[in-house]
Amino acid sequence: MSIEKTITDMARSAKEAAKAVAHLGTQKKDEALERIAQKLLDEAATIKRENEKDLADAREKGLSEAMIDRLTVSDAVIESMAGGLGDVVKLPDPVGRVTGMWLRPNGLQVGRVRIPLGVIGMIYEARPNATIDAAGLCLKAGNAAILRGGSEAFNSNTILAEIIQGALRETGIPKAAAQVIPVRDRTAVNVLLAQDEYVDLIIPRGGEGLIRFVVENSKIPVLKHYKGVCHVYVDEDADLGMAEKISYNAKVQRPGVCNAMETLLVHEAVAESFLHPMARRFKEAGVELRGCPKTCEIVPEANIATDEDWPAEYLDLILAVKVVASMEEATDHIARYGSAHTEAIVTSDYARARRFLTEVDASVVLVNASTRFNDGGELGLGAEIGISTSKLHAYGPMGLEELTTTKFVVFGDGQVRT
Amino acid sequence: MSIEKTITDMARSAKEAAKAVAHLGTQKKDEALERIAQKLLDEAATIKRENEKDLADAREKGLSEAMIDRLTVSDAVIESMAGGLGDVVKLPDPVGRVTGMWLRPNGLQVGRVRIPLGVIGMIYEARPNATIDAAGLCLKAGNAAILRGGSEAFNSNTILAEIIQGALRETGIPKAAAQVIPVRDRTAVNVLLAQDEYVDLIIPRGGEGLIRFVVENSKIPVLKHYKGVCHVYVDEDADLGMAEKISYNAKVQRPGVCNAMETLLVHEAVAESFLHPMARRFKEAGVELRGCPKTCEIVPEANIATDEDWPAEYLDLILAVKVVASMEEATDHIARYGSAHTEAIVTSDYARARRFLTEVDASVVLVNASTRFNDGGELGLGAEIGISTSKLHAYGPMGLEELTTTKFVVFGDGQVRT
Repeated sequence: MSIEKTITDMARSAKEAAKAVAHLGTQKKDEALERIAQKLLDEAATIKRENEKDLADAREKGLSEAMIDRLTVSDAVIESMAGGLGDVVKLPDPVGRVTGMWLRPNGLQVGRVRIPLGVIGMIYEARPNATIDAAGLCLKAGNAAILRGGSEAFNSNTILAEIIQGALRETGIPKAAAQVIPVRDRTAVNVLLAQDEYVDLIIPRGGEGLIRFVVENSKIPVLKHYKGVCHVYVDEDADLGMAEKISYNAKVQRPGVCNAMETLLVHEAVAESFLHPMARRFKEAGVELRGCPKTCEIVPEANIATDEDWPAEYLDLILAVKVVASMEEATDHIARYGSAHTEAIVTSDYARARRFLTEVDASVVLVNASTRFNDGGELGLGAEIGISTSKLHAYGPMGLEELTTTKFVVFGDGQVRT
Repeated sequence: MSIEKTITDMARSAKEAAKAVAHLGTQKKDEALERIAQKLLDEAATIKRENEKDLADAREKGLSEAMIDRLTVSDAVIESMAGGLGDVVKLPDPVGRVTGMWLRPNGLQVGRVRIPLGVIGMIYEARPNATIDAAGLCLKAGNAAILRGGSEAFNSNTILAEIIQGALRETGIPKAAAQVIPVRDRTAVNVLLAQDEYVDLIIPRGGEGLIRFVVENSKIPVLKHYKGVCHVYVDEDADLGMAEKISYNAKVQRPGVCNAMETLLVHEAVAESFLHPMARRFKEAGVELRGCPKTCEIVPEANIATDEDWPAEYLDLILAVKVVASMEEATDHIARYGSAHTEAIVTSDYARARRFLTEVDASVVLVNASTRFNDGGELGLGAEIGISTSKLHAYGPMGLEELTTTKFVVFGDGQVRT
């Protein structure tokens, strides 16, 4: 069968399945999620055997140790996938929730009710657990999912798909409600991105290259962020101990993720007293500093930053540092180089805290907290399926609610328009 | 100056203006709206003189009387434009509204706040008042607007743009906050649709041809509906007097609009008793009926419907009629031929009312009320800028709130992730 036909058939059957999944009760969906979790644990040996094929290929291709580590499905990873599904079971079902209801002067009662989006296509490069996470969240929100993981995880994702579909079948849910694309060929992605008749939303997760490819080739709406160039601005009225703790956490705790700090902005009034101890801590942690001329005066071991550093997303133990003369210079820098992802201020000044929150255009803006909190779980949305820096539909972490929309329901007793 | 450069400059300046408009207080925005309204009244003679040029062109080109009527800006139309702006002044400002705020276990206070989308491109064929309506709604929601009306209303829209920008200037708001495209050439639309760097959303309004053109050529997200193929289903347990009143209103009150009924579905148990008097009333109103074979048996003067009638949006005094054996047959027909716009059931049966509301996938689903209520004003959202049958971001009429999004704000006191 041609790739074209394979993918089109998948999309069509997903649309059909979506109609059934949209009207499943919460109990039924939770039952399916629990069955998937149980099967993952029961079939751990099979999963690891299939994963071993991917690992062998990866070693043969000479993939880095970090890549191989991400690809490895150990018992601990399997338990964490099952545990993640358990967490999704505990989340409240967004479907059917009435987000508002009001009475019109003519007696019409008008309400808005959450409904699923339909069919969601996920395209990702991440570790195989993304397959389970995405399938679980899509199902709980009443959507069908078409999943396309990285080709290096092909065998792992295929066995995970079999486990998911086995659990769906046992629960009486159409197996087309969660499908993994069964071909490695990248043209499968192009074909998927053209299925606007059947697929309602595409969520890509991965490097900027993958995401740009998806955006440029998709006829279907895409929710995504290209990158996270996140700033911490240390204000002249910052508690410097707090600023140090937050800056350290934002850069060092997990440098390879999108909500890690990439540029530190420091008010000139506190630049010396803040940067001396801060640079020492960063040095101990192995962070390379790339500073503006003023920064390099204060911290002689810092390298001089170039024009490429300010828009850079290092995803590594590298940090750009700039001394600014005012909060305005900081917010102007953020407006120019930021990626509308996550921006933080550290300050004790009430007015500047309020102004920063209002004026900075980013999906998450924080006062006196680490950028690392831009995460669905940390912000209280439950598990997240991604982060959007597009403003339409969702801006920020996307949880179950963002996988739904609302329709209007109207209760009348014979009203007509005059 | 080339069209390319004209439009790109407009888009860039709109983005710049959007930053200022986003942070204007409600009073300032309302002041500008009131000034526009006052100027419209003050400069009525000038507006009518410019409009006369469009009307002369239209007569020369032999446009229909209906088209010329839509194009005419009379004193009454000017008063209605000014009145419409007064209504927008009275609407609550969505910007800055906190849609939720909660405390996390670690003491972080997390909230979601409404913010404007940015720059909105409106492409429409409608009467010149659309220019005023769209500019008013975009401004109140804190957005900059780029407006492109029909070429037949070019002179009218140009003078309206001058009036709007005069009022903006007097209020101290950048005039690039509301711009009308100053070239007739259609390539201007193609250039606008490529400005994804500066424009955040495109809303097209008009015929299906225009909308498909916009969707196919836009690099920017589009909110739209292609057409409104709306149904009324008269259930076996309907109050037939109510069903007659609703069906008549849905078809006849204003047949040329997207929320008018195009197909009437009637349960076979009440087909005879309902269709006899209903057909008489439709005949008096000049409605042509195109029925399924059963309908034609009951109403011999009905024409036989063909396969083209079920998906048709007549926008005219023509109605397709089908007798169905069950509500399932009705909802299957709606799923197949409907356009996810507006669907209504007339019934006294509690369970079927609930099932219809839940199972029918449309932006507005009504029980015992006319389809004509799918309208922002009628549903209580205030003025509307359009209706979306795309599910992403907005599904149904779009009011001020749909011209905004939310960002997360986080208040901490030194929290870091562990």
